[in-house]
Amino acid sequence: MLSKAQIKYIQSLQHKKNRQKSSQYVAEGDKIVQELLQAGMPVRAVYATGDWLEQHTTLLATLSSGAAIPVEAPVLKQLSSLTTPNRAIALVDMPPLADPLPEAGEVTLALEAIQDPGNMGTLIRIADWFGIRKIICSPDCVDIYNPKTIQATMGSIVRVRIAESDITPLLQQTAVPSYAATLHGQNIADFPAMKEGIILIGNEGRGLSEEVIALATHRITIPRFGGAESLNAAVAAGIICGRLLI
Amino acid sequence: MLSKAQIKYIQSLQHKKNRQKSSQYVAEGDKIVQELLQAGMPVRAVYATGDWLEQHTTLLATLSSGAAIPVEAPVLKQLSSLTTPNRAIALVDMPPLADPLPEAGEVTLALEAIQDPGNMGTLIRIADWFGIRKIICSPDCVDIYNPKTIQATMGSIVRVRIAESDITPLLQQTAVPSYAATLHGQNIADFPAMKEGIILIGNEGRGLSEEVIALATHRITIPRFGGAESLNAAVAAGIICGRLLI
Repeated sequence: MLSKAQIKYIQSLQHKKNRQKSSQYVAEGDKIVQELLQAGMPVRAVYATGDWLEQHTTLLATLSSGAAIPVEAPVLKQLSSLTTPNRAIALVDMPPLADPLPEAGEVTLALEAIQDPGNMGTLIRIADWFGIRKIICSPDCVDIYNPKTIQATMGSIVRVRIAESDITPLLQQTAVPSYAATLHGQNIADFPAMKEGIILIGNEGRGLSEEVIALATHRITIPRFGGAESLNAAVAAGIICGRLLI
Repeated sequence: MLSKAQIKYIQSLQHKKNRQKSSQYVAEGDKIVQELLQAGMPVRAVYATGDWLEQHTTLLATLSSGAAIPVEAPVLKQLSSLTTPNRAIALVDMPPLADPLPEAGEVTLALEAIQDPGNMGTLIRIADWFGIRKIICSPDCVDIYNPKTIQATMGSIVRVRIAESDITPLLQQTAVPSYAATLHGQNIADFPAMKEGIILIGNEGRGLSEEVIALATHRITIPRFGGAESLNAAVAAGIICGRLLI
């Protein structure tokens, strides 16, 4: 049974300031809860329907420092921030942030001022697909532990490390190549596959800052043949990865 | 002034069956209303704040068979299906559906059972960016005139023609090459840029149907280097266009 105070605490984690105070977040959904457990992430509790818990007893045995708590569907609905609540919800400790400095020999994705939680989750999923193991978020990006972001990662949040840093000083400190996505750069098809470096993606409306564009070693553009003024930021990142990483 | 009956009618167009009955849809937002007018689409009415109407008098002069109607912000909020209502809303006649048969020398995007309105809008925007002028939707796709879809197209709906057809008979009738996106095909990087043909994208969860995959002349795959099980359907379409159309 969950106490009213526990329900209130989990609901409170829908807000960034409460997540930051407690260093915990909530992940919703059958698949992501399974992935968190499989990856050995610090899951503190799983709240799920009785049949879900029965179906996953082996996996739940790995829950060394947490509890598996059966709850009825109406309680799950209360805990959920989504319009369609799930059969399982996990309470998870936030992992520490990664070192923002890009590593030589690795590809890093750096995001400046991404605002939409769904875009952020989709970007994490794209990084995970292409084997990018670290994402650097500028401090004005949407919180990666926003419930909509976690949902949109489709579980990829367990495999990608997140660092936080302003992008400008980072580019000043690193010697790896950097590729800034802009509307006025060189055709992405002109570049061979990159072996290391930083892919830079900017805000949904205004793109990357002038400073970041100026500091990048390359300015890259997805050529346009039609009338759309821009592409969705996550779609653009996907297209760039599809050219530079394959 | 808008009558209660008019307000009710516009609200009713949030539902597919009412849109189909009347062959009209609602487009919300400053930019898309401007694009509809610029493109000479059959706009029947523009409902906007007085200052919006004043700012766009030249454009509104093109509104030959419709009316520009000033409404107060609270009324716009009533008309809107979005949580953040806009300063302008247009009532538009649906254009007739295009002929589904792909044209020789052109690239067509064919969508099977796309369910998410946001994905559908993003796919239309991607097509418009890459100069694809026609999209074929299977009958079980989400309605393209869903308000969230229209919103996600960011205006591209005015430049892309939409056809509706089951995909299997279409592939049986056409001689142009077809590229089916699947998890078990040939690396997209192996293909030269395509000059004509059909790019086939399937449902968000289950992908393309077996029949469509079997009938396609090529089965294509975005190689995966990390742990994500799949990519978002619109992101996958973007990546494929970024390889096959540049």
